[in-house]
Amino acid sequence: VRAVVRFCLAALPGFALISTGQADYLVREVGSFHIGGQQVVLSGLPEKEMSFTAGMAPVKVDPNGEFEAGQMYVQYVKLVNPKAKYPLLLWHGGGLTGVTWETKPDGKPGWQQFFLSAGYDTYVSDAVERGRASWARYPEIFKTEPVFRTKKEAWEGFRIGPSYETGGKRVAFEDTQFPVEAFDQFAKQAVPRWISNDAPTQAAYDALVQKLCPCVIAVHSQGGNFGFRAALAAPDKVKALVAVEPSGAPDPAQVDLTKLKATPHLFVYGDHIDSSNRWQTYIKATQRYFAAMKESGVNTSWLDLPKEGIKGNTHMLMMDKNSDEIALRIQSWLVEHGSM
Amino acid sequence: VRAVVRFCLAALPGFALISTGQADYLVREVGSFHIGGQQVVLSGLPEKEMSFTAGMAPVKVDPNGEFEAGQMYVQYVKLVNPKAKYPLLLWHGGGLTGVTWETKPDGKPGWQQFFLSAGYDTYVSDAVERGRASWARYPEIFKTEPVFRTKKEAWEGFRIGPSYETGGKRVAFEDTQFPVEAFDQFAKQAVPRWISNDAPTQAAYDALVQKLCPCVIAVHSQGGNFGFRAALAAPDKVKALVAVEPSGAPDPAQVDLTKLKATPHLFVYGDHIDSSNRWQTYIKATQRYFAAMKESGVNTSWLDLPKEGIKGNTHMLMMDKNSDEIALRIQSWLVEHGSM
Repeated sequence: VRAVVRFCLAALPGFALISTGQADYLVREVGSFHIGGQQVVLSGLPEKEMSFTAGMAPVKVDPNGEFEAGQMYVQYVKLVNPKAKYPLLLWHGGGLTGVTWETKPDGKPGWQQFFLSAGYDTYVSDAVERGRASWARYPEIFKTEPVFRTKKEAWEGFRIGPSYETGGKRVAFEDTQFPVEAFDQFAKQAVPRWISNDAPTQAAYDALVQKLCPCVIAVHSQGGNFGFRAALAAPDKVKALVAVEPSGAPDPAQVDLTKLKATPHLFVYGDHIDSSNRWQTYIKATQRYFAAMKESGVNTSWLDLPKEGIKGNTHMLMMDKNSDEIALRIQSWLVEHGSM
Repeated sequence: VRAVVRFCLAALPGFALISTGQADYLVREVGSFHIGGQQVVLSGLPEKEMSFTAGMAPVKVDPNGEFEAGQMYVQYVKLVNPKAKYPLLLWHGGGLTGVTWETKPDGKPGWQQFFLSAGYDTYVSDAVERGRASWARYPEIFKTEPVFRTKKEAWEGFRIGPSYETGGKRVAFEDTQFPVEAFDQFAKQAVPRWISNDAPTQAAYDALVQKLCPCVIAVHSQGGNFGFRAALAAPDKVKALVAVEPSGAPDPAQVDLTKLKATPHLFVYGDHIDSSNRWQTYIKATQRYFAAMKESGVNTSWLDLPKEGIKGNTHMLMMDKNSDEIALRIQSWLVEHGSM
């Protein structure tokens, strides 16, 4: 695979600027911060008796008081000499965290490492309610119950294979690029999600763009909609948007796409969309958004991997066996669109 | 402060090996993995109707199926040329995540950055149930309800100050080293905790030691007990243990401390313990453990910061204004005990 990647490189524009994700890099700082959210006060809830140490007498716990809620978490790696003009922000999808972009479930380097090696400062975030962003008591603060994605739902919904029998057989697509032996490891990355947190999540992303950008942003799945709206809210600051398998997009009739003339968009989709009712529905929204952007004169590209002869990619294509090959395509597009 | 730190450096052993946390470093890989946990199956729970997109018709969600639960998350930064003989594992305390060791709430570099600059590969983890480790449905999988720490409890319990009035005045100790203006930012790092997950948490930490070590480990607060037990379970692999404000320790009568003869331990405590009933109780357990280790011939040191003339440190001393000064003391002790 490495040899193929190196071969393909020679055919890509901006060759000298493109790394294969194998280079070491000089780091100034690894760090993090929380952004967004606000203080919430709880009162009137009953005290509970709890024993914090096995065998010890229970103590009274008063759940009332002040908390922070609705913030997101952002971790950065700042290079001493970034080759890229702009930092790269990586926004994950629903029921997942920034781990999406880190080492793949099979232990091989993921896209964060790829783009660090390529010379980007990276900012990997955990959206509101997920991972190190933390979550808040429900229904008092978050208004609904959390939802936990089953392995079956991940296997089928992420188009790893056509069927998954709980306690039984997992059937993968014959050409799947997902490392199926690492599927249980991938399932450890799942986090609960809420269906009632879109507003604080968008607000935190918008605040992040104001804090960090100009930047380029790569979004995945549920992150797609947040990314499209963030670009519309701050088109001067988002210098390019890479939408990896976005699961939705704004209604073009309700937004002003002409704002995006200086914000090129790239859509990337994997394989087996035809086998999934869910993805047939999702993709219609993004196809409509893409078409409307084209009409409005926005610089927009659509990378249909199977059409390019790249078969078997799942929804989690940054974890697929050929993830470097796809990252190279994206990096090539970013370079063509002025990121370096 | 930097000038003082540099001045103090000259007086420390192993000077040439000690960094002030300001040096750039050449990185081979930033990455992560999950370890521990297992598959759990839920069945017999009722379906729920939920609307995943505002305004869309609700869909039926079946909560039954297979999940992974009980895993922990570990993120590493591997240097090209680590100066340290062993990697440094950083284990956080209760109701918090690995963010404890990252950038401080006031935006200044924390201990992860300090020890990377000093030449250690670092492994920062989120224990079971917290942050990117994820958490599982309760009471079906996790047996109890989560507990959310109030700001008042953090302020008083972490010895930032003697009193915190909800909706009112926050009184800090006059000499506090905590950057009180960043306290709300610190509160964004809090995550819910369970009181019923000690066993899977210890199992995941023990598995981590088997995977990564030989190593040196720094533990904080609730992490103390997990660290002490991890060292007892694998004394050949834990080359040194730095216990930063541990909140407990095993009963020395129930463990074999003679196993620890090749595992030096350093205890570090901040100020105002006398003002806290809670910490007066906690410290008795660690004092007893320390004394018993001494008697068993274990190489053990106790760094009482106020006795050394370093006043005002809180429980979160890796976030205090003088955190570099304390990191330097720890690094000096590690060097003396063979980490470089």
